[in-house]
Amino acid sequence: MVTLKEIARECNVSPTTVSNILNGKPKVSQETRQRVLETIERRGYRPNYIAQGLRKQKTQMIGIIAEDIAQFTTPGIVEGIMSYCEERGYRTIVKNLRLYARWRDSWYENESRYHSILDPTLKELNSIMVDGIIYIAGHARIIHCFSEDFKIPAVMAYAIDSNPAIPSVLIDDEASAYEMIKYMISRGHRRIGVIGGKVNNIHTQQRLLGYQKALFEEGILFNPSWIRYAGWEQEGAYEEAKELLKTDVTAVFCMADRMAGGVYRYLDEKGLRAGVDIAVAGFDNQDIAEYFVPGLTTTALPLGEIGHTSVHILLDQMEGREEKAREEKPRRIYIPCTFVERDSVHRI
Amino acid sequence: MVTLKEIARECNVSPTTVSNILNGKPKVSQETRQRVLETIERRGYRPNYIAQGLRKQKTQMIGIIAEDIAQFTTPGIVEGIMSYCEERGYRTIVKNLRLYARWRDSWYENESRYHSILDPTLKELNSIMVDGIIYIAGHARIIHCFSEDFKIPAVMAYAIDSNPAIPSVLIDDEASAYEMIKYMISRGHRRIGVIGGKVNNIHTQQRLLGYQKALFEEGILFNPSWIRYAGWEQEGAYEEAKELLKTDVTAVFCMADRMAGGVYRYLDEKGLRAGVDIAVAGFDNQDIAEYFVPGLTTTALPLGEIGHTSVHILLDQMEGREEKAREEKPRRIYIPCTFVERDSVHRI
Repeated sequence: MVTLKEIARECNVSPTTVSNILNGKPKVSQETRQRVLETIERRGYRPNYIAQGLRKQKTQMIGIIAEDIAQFTTPGIVEGIMSYCEERGYRTIVKNLRLYARWRDSWYENESRYHSILDPTLKELNSIMVDGIIYIAGHARIIHCFSEDFKIPAVMAYAIDSNPAIPSVLIDDEASAYEMIKYMISRGHRRIGVIGGKVNNIHTQQRLLGYQKALFEEGILFNPSWIRYAGWEQEGAYEEAKELLKTDVTAVFCMADRMAGGVYRYLDEKGLRAGVDIAVAGFDNQDIAEYFVPGLTTTALPLGEIGHTSVHILLDQMEGREEKAREEKPRRIYIPCTFVERDSVHRI
Repeated sequence: MVTLKEIARECNVSPTTVSNILNGKPKVSQETRQRVLETIERRGYRPNYIAQGLRKQKTQMIGIIAEDIAQFTTPGIVEGIMSYCEERGYRTIVKNLRLYARWRDSWYENESRYHSILDPTLKELNSIMVDGIIYIAGHARIIHCFSEDFKIPAVMAYAIDSNPAIPSVLIDDEASAYEMIKYMISRGHRRIGVIGGKVNNIHTQQRLLGYQKALFEEGILFNPSWIRYAGWEQEGAYEEAKELLKTDVTAVFCMADRMAGGVYRYLDEKGLRAGVDIAVAGFDNQDIAEYFVPGLTTTALPLGEIGHTSVHILLDQMEGREEKAREEKPRRIYIPCTFVERDSVHRI
């Protein structure tokens, strides 16, 4: 790769002159400018941004760390981050920890495993001098990611960092579940079963709270035996649907579209139909929701907006607008989800 | 950020000594080594890999350029690349061009749009001195990505570069469609309709060729009026299913699972069922395929293997093992897909 010095030598000018021309500074004759730019073009010289960053101490680069870009929620958040960064003149670079690919779900509680992958990644982003970092979690939980003495501005997206100085951007699980249950009640359903994810999961707990609040407001008794936990996947939900449909529920609120898939499959086996015999609602609005027959009524995750908001508060930090807020209390921003009506919740 | 020089000053040794300790070279007393390592730990000094790369002219870093990581095929390929890179001791960094997010499908033919995004990205990867680049296309086509004088070893994944020096890694569309049609024929179907993607698309053309070969081998006349094109999406396929089911086909081969979704929806409206009244096959084995009721028989894309193979031939280039092969003819590697049997193709 040709260097700036070589360009300077070939044009018989100083490296500073070449640099001035590249940075659009005046004080260079038109003739020299022309000659240098032609040489740059001919020799294929490319300014080295990282080396520039090393000098200026600013790279205009945001590092994105994804726990796993194969998680269905992650590409949408990455897209939101990147489009907003581009608008604001920041470049981005993605590091993918591949945590689910490595260890499925056996790593959440294993700090040393987690840090064996995370720490070199933080080191590397530090070493290329990113101006800020956005960490994208695969699901909501409390993460020991950024140590107290971590120096680069950072934001946690889709989870909470145990370091209170790191702002978090989350979805509003409780309000979203509340909205769905209110809708189901408005369609005449009062005996509403629930198929939740993992029992100790923040998403599960918050959505259950939304369910309970809606029931309470409507004067409906909460029957804990209608709450089943299927661990997020289709197979488990198929099994739980069997149990739930032995009771007299008229509707099932599934905390994931994938789990609604298990309910649909069970109904099909029994010759029943969602939206006709039993109302079924999902959560996530994954691609699959619109392929269900009938289409699945569900809640869309605000992935793009999580990305935008994360950048927004990261830039606030980077540009010093957040000093006070950070000292006062941990900053958590809850982004509302969007209700998506299709045909799986009938009126009774 | 503390520098190597500051560490050296604080320990009262030369920067070279600190560097030797970090690089595990002998010739340093145990006492000095201990003192320096403690200072490094306490001060939080991190070696700067990029600066090291600038000196060594090797960063052990592979750049990954994705046309759009939100394309459903891309995360699987990225995962395949990263897992293999890690095995081989290479770090990776991802740049996302966001082409579909920016312009949906209106950019394929617009070279200046395309290069307005691509060129700065190549420049940036050049500037951080990646040792090699893997480009991940969103779908198979001929791409003018790497110019003839491009100096960094590169591989095109999931498409073909117009520069014959760049090896391509592709799926074997023809063989995969052939296998599916042979299977449908083995189940007794001889009147098999096709819902293709876009008509001029390489995937569409190659899969159609596989269909024709299977028919020819089985002595079945090719009826061109049974070939419909729906542009890859559910809606179009729903419309084409209407037309196709006016004929006497007993089976429909859809070139995408999403399009099979449109056929399922139309069948449902007519009170018909896939795998009972009409056989339906998909392609891609997207997540949705296993949520269809009944489950969709389809073809799984070898995304991880595309990633692995791309790294493999990139390292061959980087380490000089490919010089000869590159001079002989453009290198194209076709990876076989995997047949996935579920319940949507019944025996008649």
